[in-house]
Amino acid sequence: MKPLKVSSRLSRDFPPETRYLIGVSGGRDSVALLDQLVDLGYRNLIVCHLNHHLRGRSSDADARFVRNLAERYRREIAGQAQRGPNPRTGKRGARPTRNRRIDFEPGTATVRALAAKKKMSIETAAREARYAFFAKVAKRRKCHTIFLAHHADDLVETFLLNLLRGAGTTGLAAMREVSTRRIEHVDLTIVRPLLGVWRDEIDLYVCERRLKFREDASNKDLGPARNRLRCRVIPYLEKIFGRNVRRNIWRTATILSEEENFFELFLPEKFSDVLDAKLLRELPLALQRRMLSKWLRSEKVRDVGFDLIERARSLVDQVNRVAKTNLPRDRHLRRRGRELFIES
Amino acid sequence: MKPLKVSSRLSRDFPPETRYLIGVSGGRDSVALLDQLVDLGYRNLIVCHLNHHLRGRSSDADARFVRNLAERYRREIAGQAQRGPNPRTGKRGARPTRNRRIDFEPGTATVRALAAKKKMSIETAAREARYAFFAKVAKRRKCHTIFLAHHADDLVETFLLNLLRGAGTTGLAAMREVSTRRIEHVDLTIVRPLLGVWRDEIDLYVCERRLKFREDASNKDLGPARNRLRCRVIPYLEKIFGRNVRRNIWRTATILSEEENFFELFLPEKFSDVLDAKLLRELPLALQRRMLSKWLRSEKVRDVGFDLIERARSLVDQVNRVAKTNLPRDRHLRRRGRELFIES
Repeated sequence: MKPLKVSSRLSRDFPPETRYLIGVSGGRDSVALLDQLVDLGYRNLIVCHLNHHLRGRSSDADARFVRNLAERYRREIAGQAQRGPNPRTGKRGARPTRNRRIDFEPGTATVRALAAKKKMSIETAAREARYAFFAKVAKRRKCHTIFLAHHADDLVETFLLNLLRGAGTTGLAAMREVSTRRIEHVDLTIVRPLLGVWRDEIDLYVCERRLKFREDASNKDLGPARNRLRCRVIPYLEKIFGRNVRRNIWRTATILSEEENFFELFLPEKFSDVLDAKLLRELPLALQRRMLSKWLRSEKVRDVGFDLIERARSLVDQVNRVAKTNLPRDRHLRRRGRELFIES
Repeated sequence: MKPLKVSSRLSRDFPPETRYLIGVSGGRDSVALLDQLVDLGYRNLIVCHLNHHLRGRSSDADARFVRNLAERYRREIAGQAQRGPNPRTGKRGARPTRNRRIDFEPGTATVRALAAKKKMSIETAAREARYAFFAKVAKRRKCHTIFLAHHADDLVETFLLNLLRGAGTTGLAAMREVSTRRIEHVDLTIVRPLLGVWRDEIDLYVCERRLKFREDASNKDLGPARNRLRCRVIPYLEKIFGRNVRRNIWRTATILSEEENFFELFLPEKFSDVLDAKLLRELPLALQRRMLSKWLRSEKVRDVGFDLIERARSLVDQVNRVAKTNLPRDRHLRRRGRELFIES
């Protein structure tokens, strides 16, 4: 039985002895990731499951399923440890301690209400609720690294979706192997060990090991655009351009992610609430855009896309006399002399 | 009648008084570009037309058409100059001198034979033949800047095609507003004033001004992949994701082009025939890839794509013991100690 080709950096950068969070929806991908991590010796995991309450009883059943799954792995590990020395290696298993077990952390959110209130798509609201939940658990359990089960097909789909929606290059590099995200004063390190593994390979893994999973769990918050991309657009492109299309897009997405890391080298980690327009003007265009984008995000401006960045850049341009542009939620971006700042 | 929205940098960076080459196939796009440039006061142009001999008599008719077109503009300009002072402005037209006229430079190539000999697609062979011809004219006429009529739809199509074929990020930025290219010891500056103009707008321009053009001339060397992209894939994406798809891809392509300029800042202009593996290893990944790509191209290695770059990178990796990898045309890339070099 073939293991999943998890990233080679994984055990080097994230040693199995340490404690980690793992997001488990109960769907095929996260069930496979959990199984593979336990198999690789990760025995110190906190299984995080958010009940999105999007499908009524079915959502509750997902939560029960993940609770039982975590319990099963926990008993398995405890059993291995108590069973005494391994007959093959002669080594004694580690004792079941508090630092060597699989825990379960459930959470709930009313995503539909959140989406209506914040005027977001269900997909976006579900994602925000999930990350807020992960951050909360991270803070309480003092454990700031989380494994997520996004795979190669997810990467390709997200890349294409962001391309077709015009999310700019940072949007194209949205799904990285390792990235950090600041959510409500908590710094979360997000690790995606399966970004190089295709959906087919996960199917095979799950099938060979007879792993049970909840059929629809991981797709429950897919937007219609992503579904059409997965079920219609990508198969169509493959029909026309051959089977390498997926792999080719995957490569480009991977390269762009690494270039994002390169650009990060030139940007400050933290910003003050005022940006120096003159310094900004002297940067190469590619850095101007990223600097503005990162600063606006740090100021909690929502939906920072290409258009907003370009409007912000036009303020910086000395020739342009306009010194104010609108931001979402009735805020304004204003320039006075050299200073760029936000008015609420 | 609306003029075409040519790039605002055009007249600043390429003043109308100077002499330029312009590539004219006789198709709608290049006919519109020539007309618009003359209208903007560019009166010192060398019209370059390569007969690709791909469609027999029709190709010859294209060449005659472009010759007549150039002749017509030349007479028009001479006429304007001799007609005396402009009744509206009272200014006298410039005299028709050798430096103030439209010239015609025809060339011929047997693209089909070239494609067979070099094992290239017709599209690629036609492009190579065209650039070689432009470089020849540039050298003979001592005029190293050429205007080409690529427009916004061309940019979007080229971007998608390179994405689906896995050409890497440099491939994604293949069509820039201003770029330079070294062809057979001639440095050619390629300027594309219409990259921000859509095909529809060119259609309207040509229609309003009743410009004649050769229907199929500019599409004669389109590959089947590009044709399918234009006629099937992009309309399909627009049907599913809405009409902004084209514009969104255009933006991303434009941003990536500018980022390519940013990366260029970190790369040497010229290379020796040996690359220092140790220095290379210390660069960020994004620069390693570009450095290798630029060096390999400077060593005239063909088809430098993602796979080749990754194989080259694996030589640089100290852990890897392999010290040789194959290049096209029976050449090899080899590492000995710190030195990376090519063996024929």
